[in-house]
Amino acid sequence: MTAVRLLVIDGPNLNLLGVREPTVYGTETLEDVRRRVGERAASVGAAVTFEQTNSEARVIELLQRAPRSVDGVVLNAGALTHTSYAIADAIAAITIPVVEVHLSNPAAREPFRHRSTIARVVAGSIAGFGPRSYELAVLALVEMVRERVRVGP
Amino acid sequence: MTAVRLLVIDGPNLNLLGVREPTVYGTETLEDVRRRVGERAASVGAAVTFEQTNSEARVIELLQRAPRSVDGVVLNAGALTHTSYAIADAIAAITIPVVEVHLSNPAAREPFRHRSTIARVVAGSIAGFGPRSYELAVLALVEMVRERVRVGP
Amino acid sequence: MTAVRLLVIDGPNLNLLGVREPTVYGTETLEDVRRRVGERAASVGAAVTFEQTNSEARVIELLQRAPRSVDGVVLNAGALTHTSYAIADAIAAITIPVVEVHLSNPAAREPFRHRSTIARVVAGSIAGFGPRSYELAVLALVEMVRERVRVGP
Amino acid sequence: MTAVRLLVIDGPNLNLLGVREPTVYGTETLEDVRRRVGERAASVGAAVTFEQTNSEARVIELLQRAPRSVDGVVLNAGALTHTSYAIADAIAAITIPVVEVHLSNPAAREPFRHRSTIARVVAGSIAGFGPRSYELAVLALVEMVRERVRVGP
Amino acid sequence: MTAVRLLVIDGPNLNLLGVREPTVYGTETLEDVRRRVGERAASVGAAVTFEQTNSEARVIELLQRAPRSVDGVVLNAGALTHTSYAIADAIAAITIPVVEVHLSNPAAREPFRHRSTIARVVAGSIAGFGPRSYELAVLALVEMVRERVRVGP
Amino acid sequence: MTAVRLLVIDGPNLNLLGVREPTVYGTETLEDVRRRVGERAASVGAAVTFEQTNSEARVIELLQRAPRSVDGVVLNAGALTHTSYAIADAIAAITIPVVEVHLSNPAAREPFRHRSTIARVVAGSIAGFGPRSYELAVLALVEMVRERVRVGP
Amino acid sequence: MTAVRLLVIDGPNLNLLGVREPTVYGTETLEDVRRRVGERAASVGAAVTFEQTNSEARVIELLQRAPRSVDGVVLNAGALTHTSYAIADAIAAITIPVVEVHLSNPAAREPFRHRSTIARVVAGSIAGFGPRSYELAVLALVEMVRERVRVGP
Amino acid sequence: MTAVRLLVIDGPNLNLLGVREPTVYGTETLEDVRRRVGERAASVGAAVTFEQTNSEARVIELLQRAPRSVDGVVLNAGALTHTSYAIADAIAAITIPVVEVHLSNPAAREPFRHRSTIARVVAGSIAGFGPRSYELAVLALVEMVRERVRVGP
Amino acid sequence: MTAVRLLVIDGPNLNLLGVREPTVYGTETLEDVRRRVGERAASVGAAVTFEQTNSEARVIELLQRAPRSVDGVVLNAGALTHTSYAIADAIAAITIPVVEVHLSNPAAREPFRHRSTIARVVAGSIAGFGPRSYELAVLALVEMVRERVRVGP
Amino acid sequence: MTAVRLLVIDGPNLNLLGVREPTVYGTETLEDVRRRVGERAASVGAAVTFEQTNSEARVIELLQRAPRSVDGVVLNAGALTHTSYAIADAIAAITIPVVEVHLSNPAAREPFRHRSTIARVVAGSIAGFGPRSYELAVLALVEMVRERVRVGP
Amino acid sequence: MTAVRLLVIDGPNLNLLGVREPTVYGTETLEDVRRRVGERAASVGAAVTFEQTNSEARVIELLQRAPRSVDGVVLNAGALTHTSYAIADAIAAITIPVVEVHLSNPAAREPFRHRSTIARVVAGSIAGFGPRSYELAVLALVEMVRERVRVGP
Amino acid sequence: MTAVRLLVIDGPNLNLLGVREPTVYGTETLEDVRRRVGERAASVGAAVTFEQTNSEARVIELLQRAPRSVDGVVLNAGALTHTSYAIADAIAAITIPVVEVHLSNPAAREPFRHRSTIARVVAGSIAGFGPRSYELAVLALVEMVRERVRVGP
Repeated sequence: MTAVRLLVIDGPNLNLLGVREPTVYGTETLEDVRRRVGERAASVGAAVTFEQTNSEARVIELLQRAPRSVDGVVLNAGALTHTSYAIADAIAAITIPVVEVHLSNPAAREPFRHRSTIARVVAGSIAGFGPRSYELAVLALVEMVRERVRVGP
Repeated sequence: MTAVRLLVIDGPNLNLLGVREPTVYGTETLEDVRRRVGERAASVGAAVTFEQTNSEARVIELLQRAPRSVDGVVLNAGALTHTSYAIADAIAAITIPVVEVHLSNPAAREPFRHRSTIARVVAGSIAGFGPRSYELAVLALVEMVRERVRVGP
Repeated sequence: MTAVRLLVIDGPNLNLLGVREPTVYGTETLEDVRRRVGERAASVGAAVTFEQTNSEARVIELLQRAPRSVDGVVLNAGALTHTSYAIADAIAAITIPVVEVHLSNPAAREPFRHRSTIARVVAGSIAGFGPRSYELAVLALVEMVRERVRVGP
Repeated sequence: MTAVRLLVIDGPNLNLLGVREPTVYGTETLEDVRRRVGERAASVGAAVTFEQTNSEARVIELLQRAPRSVDGVVLNAGALTHTSYAIADAIAAITIPVVEVHLSNPAAREPFRHRSTIARVVAGSIAGFGPRSYELAVLALVEMVRERVRVGP
Repeated sequence: MTAVRLLVIDGPNLNLLGVREPTVYGTETLEDVRRRVGERAASVGAAVTFEQTNSEARVIELLQRAPRSVDGVVLNAGALTHTSYAIADAIAAITIPVVEVHLSNPAAREPFRHRSTIARVVAGSIAGFGPRSYELAVLALVEMVRERVRVGP
Repeated sequence: MTAVRLLVIDGPNLNLLGVREPTVYGTETLEDVRRRVGERAASVGAAVTFEQTNSEARVIELLQRAPRSVDGVVLNAGALTHTSYAIADAIAAITIPVVEVHLSNPAAREPFRHRSTIARVVAGSIAGFGPRSYELAVLALVEMVRERVRVGP
Repeated sequence: MTAVRLLVIDGPNLNLLGVREPTVYGTETLEDVRRRVGERAASVGAAVTFEQTNSEARVIELLQRAPRSVDGVVLNAGALTHTSYAIADAIAAITIPVVEVHLSNPAAREPFRHRSTIARVVAGSIAGFGPRSYELAVLALVEMVRERVRVGP
Repeated sequence: MTAVRLLVIDGPNLNLLGVREPTVYGTETLEDVRRRVGERAASVGAAVTFEQTNSEARVIELLQRAPRSVDGVVLNAGALTHTSYAIADAIAAITIPVVEVHLSNPAAREPFRHRSTIARVVAGSIAGFGPRSYELAVLALVEMVRERVRVGP
Repeated sequence: MTAVRLLVIDGPNLNLLGVREPTVYGTETLEDVRRRVGERAASVGAAVTFEQTNSEARVIELLQRAPRSVDGVVLNAGALTHTSYAIADAIAAITIPVVEVHLSNPAAREPFRHRSTIARVVAGSIAGFGPRSYELAVLALVEMVRERVRVGP
Repeated sequence: MTAVRLLVIDGPNLNLLGVREPTVYGTETLEDVRRRVGERAASVGAAVTFEQTNSEARVIELLQRAPRSVDGVVLNAGALTHTSYAIADAIAAITIPVVEVHLSNPAAREPFRHRSTIARVVAGSIAGFGPRSYELAVLALVEMVRERVRVGP
Repeated sequence: MTAVRLLVIDGPNLNLLGVREPTVYGTETLEDVRRRVGERAASVGAAVTFEQTNSEARVIELLQRAPRSVDGVVLNAGALTHTSYAIADAIAAITIPVVEVHLSNPAAREPFRHRSTIARVVAGSIAGFGPRSYELAVLALVEMVRERVRVGP
Repeated sequence: MTAVRLLVIDGPNLNLLGVREPTVYGTETLEDVRRRVGERAASVGAAVTFEQTNSEARVIELLQRAPRSVDGVVLNAGALTHTSYAIADAIAAITIPVVEVHLSNPAAREPFRHRSTIARVVAGSIAGFGPRSYELAVLALVEMVRERVRVGP
């Protein structure tokens, strides 16, 4: 069983995880989340690399380059989820599966968080499970890659 | 490790799975999906019962009674997802976690499917992974129940 | 003074009263409310029967049949208040007065609860007085029936 | 049983009652209505004073001063119901219960009458029963005051 | 020329036909309409069965089962026409032609009746001809079935 | 049985029928459709004349003059269906029945085709049956004229 | 020919005429306009009284009392034109004709000035002619009163 | 005092005046109206020519040519009032005053009649006075032309 | 350095400051705020007079008269901020600077408080600093008046 | 190199070019523009014919006939750009390329000019370059025709 | 009195101040403004550092790091004010006060400038005073920091 | 004839041209397009430099600096076209002409692509001609620069 390589991209303000609004996002830091996700990935034979950026352009570049080195992407685009059509275009332009994740449930928050510009182009969406959202995305991607079946729009 | 008991509720027209619009929903029948979900649940020590109904009232009653016999619910409310506030009220009224699942990605389909009346009250949402959406929901619920941590709004 | 016969119809999730979201709906159960309403009715010479259902079709059927056995209807349609035009059509089709009641004040809650499909066709609306909303509706109906004056749109 | 003191405030154009659009508002004059309301109040041991004004500012001042002399307010704000946030702020600022009443059913009339700026802040709303709307409001307030229970948003 | 088998499904409140709002719907009862439709069908060599229900779930089940016993469906979904995406999904899922009919012209009535959730998926729509709407639908379906040409979206 | 005289008016671009977007409108030309319609009319003792124009003003004039020479009108206003209130005014101004027809189902096409300015004033609407829409309209009109019953809003 | 008595009511800020934004409203003061209107009225045998107020309540009271002393009203409600349903209700409640006037053309100004709450209930509207708008309104009212024909909705 | 020359343009369906919907438009025919308008114009030393057309293009051409032969235009664009930006552009392009008139009050009718595409560019608007709307427009134009003052946006 | 004279106008319900909803508006009374503002003004050589009214008409009149006695106005129009175009017209009509202030941040409250009808015409806006909003407005006005530079739209 | 034949269609009011609102449209007349366009076309071996009409029907007919005599069309539909779906249907129905041009930039003008009903069906759009918009359209069409490549939606 | 340290962040295009659209933004350059702000800060014992960037990501990073070195932030986010939820999230995530400033009054400009994504989360907003907006923000922050009272939502 | 210097700026994801969604954008790579554009420019005596970036900030900086080294800009802002007011502000701030180009026709794609934030401020827009859109923009800019006439809003 070959190793599956995945990239987890975290967008704006996710570097503040565990610090920022803990009633909404929980008390685990981004490092904590990455450790959990890495361990979960390892348990199913996958290796994960992590990137965090506050820049829309950097998210786009990470997505454009991802197919050269990984088999799938987990993307938490933060507040850019609700406004960036350029990130959506980048997802549509690449051929490896991208899974959208959210820690909290955007539908239970402010109205501007109810709209996702990227939901329309991703392989799947997982929201509301806290850090476990990332873990479920990793499990889904590993199985999708192993089956060589791209599920999505 | 005690067995986790889960209920999978499928709403209107999901009994036609595999027959209805296979380009959208795939060729697996509801029976096929149930078998996969049952096996996946068994692999993590959970037992699943299944219900399908075309009736909003029956979905509400299944939800109201669920806490008496199971530890969590996987709900694919079909087209009722977009219109039923009564189902959302039932979810809000019970204290076991309910996870919303969709086979395809509603955001990639007709505009009326972009709105979920229940997303606001569920423990988490998983969409777009085909039958695997159910399996991921089972995994998530099993872990949530074992940790006795309700994640959600 | 002839006895006035009334029917109280409660819609989806009202069977959970006293259990569900007590900060919104109070701690009295549906049984408690029915006892209060029955006593109030008796005090003005009226007899009340009660029905609760989670089904839109059942609400419609109760309304259609009501004129055969009662003189007026108190209706708390729950979340169906905001979506069912079929219930509104049933109210418009019968000739005995129907009074819309709500325990809490829908205008003080989520935006989807601000719209009532039935307000347009009922004899009157009473909202926000908790279980007393039902009692006021009973008083109003008894007087309306005794005066043989149908007040409404 | 101590006497309950109530204030009934009527807004713009309600001084024309019985004259203006009798097909909508009935043929009873404001004096007729006040007599009925006074008698009903007396029958339950309450005393009512009445005010009518066409001025938003006067409604606000009546509301602000009400807690000094009465135990509850019945408010028919007329067409100001649909536009005045300042009256809503005044209701929110005082601590005695205010009940919103309407003679006819605003939901059965022009679209601009479907929105109430004050419904969100009142203790309860009663609409569509003609002059009886005021009587029901008086009954409700008397009971609420006697129980010292403020029911509302 | 083989007999064509058709099913006519009437939705909520159509059992009150002839009784309910005769200025809108006419004075013929549902029985009268069925007799006319049956005779018209017989005149072109078709046999019709009739169902009326106030339940969305029942409409869905009748549609799902229809292909086993009939060649086409005439559907008057009543007020569900304006809200039920689940019925629309059921129509889209079956392969025999479904024709949408309305007695009166929804476009000449309240705004909420101007939107049809099912118009998008039916083989054709006929509205405004009173009971004749059903007869025209029967004629259309008989010809469509005989030509083995499914006309529609 | 006296002959019924009908006028079929086709609006903008319907002269291109069979040529323009055959996947939407089919391969029959306007001449083919007219032949079918004429034959169907003859079979029920009616005579049809045909007009096609790309001009809103000409449609209005044909409608205004129609009562002088025919007993009913079949109107396919093409894209003017969605924008012309002047045609709707002309229909409302004349006293013979006008039936709106469409070859394809506007509700299954672009959003701007979902609105009909004329649906509100016609005797009935028939859409989605291809050329058969015209034939059904002819049948309906012949019967309506013979019964001397104007059916419509 | 009996003298016709008219009342001209000017609403908020019209006392500043000639001073306020002369590029929009011209340089004639309210006194100048009143002189012109008075002379024009005299020339057709009418007598005009004038009122200006910044108060919605005062406009309502002037309208309510007008039938006791005049035969018609010219109303420039200023910015209240766009928000006051209470003034509209007062107009609807009285039986002498009210003509709405505007100096400038609201439709050529800010979007919030495009909506008139009172246009729906007045006998007629005249806008854009500067002070002449008032003069035309006077001419119209004098003729309407003399013909004892109330023209309007 | 030189004679003022005016052109009255009537748009779609106004040729049916007196025939069409007399409860809305009155029983005077277009000929009756023209006679009244001609006499009124003569009484103030003006000469009027009249045009009626159902064609938007013809309205535009009449407007474009008007400055060559007349000093002002009275325009009742009928239902084109609510949709034609091309007529509005033609009005904006010519330098003689154009006054918009309506027989009935569009604001008191269907919502689509509340919007005027041309109100923004005319010298003034007069609505709701029946045929007198035209007469007032003639009076206004004659005075405007004599004062050589173009009043308008 | 000449003394600068300023007027502070407080609109509806601000007389209840310190009493009404202290979690939103703080515990300082209007008297407390006026003392602070007076002291701050004195510290920069300005004299302030204060007015509070619940009446839109009174706000308009205070604004119209202000140029006769003061050099600038601080305006907290309360809930009238969101609905009064007449106050906005009054501000636009006077030539001394008016600064809009709010104690709390309207953008962080109910949606109807997000729109200001007057923001478009004031010299500047200050919101969210509690009583300090008034002090900052005084400082700004004093400097603006001394520089004889009107800053604003 | 064979000559390319093109048709330039100008819609309503473009005959007034150079006269009408020169600050928006410039001072060149339609004749001037045609001369420039003709010369530019000649310089690349193309021959242009010109049509101007104020009639939507005529635009449609010119488009329908164009394929018989020319290789491409330049269309400035004037104000019809924003309302005519019938012109859009005509463009969609023909197989030679149509290029949409505008002298000024509609996006920098009134909101109603921001929407183009035809942008969706043309081969390309050019706006804002004054008369040069036509010249660029001619260059584009000549190259497109020579390459026998239809570029467009 | 300890020195207060503040950071002024200017967003996109503010480096062009004094050059870009001087009728809107004035003729002072960003350097001029910084000098004024620095002097004003010094006069109240505060020290200011300045940053300008055209990058949303850089604004977010400046905000995230600000609490390490300053006591408060003045933010003019330029056009990002109207679109960036990521900047709003960054403001919500840090615990030092952020004051929103604008040179001109967004409410007096294009509609897209009427919405601020950040107004909801800042300590206060100051708009329309030109460069003085920054100075007032500095004064407010210095006082807020000295009182150790964070004022805001 | 002096050489004209132009800058072509390509925004997010245009580096993927020829790879990404070739059915929408064609199979030519960005390099291919640049070669064509360079040759076309050379043929009319112009020199072009090219920039591509996924960063909004970088687009703004390229625009701000452009006037120092070039005479005009061709801008394809990609998906930023639909959301970036900061880029629009940068275009408005510089004095050399900027021409907006699009390969495909945004009006024929998803609704979010129908809105351009920059169309309002550019010298002209060209869309739908594939790579030729750039070539036409170059031709237009060269002529505009040579005539020293800035055409645009």
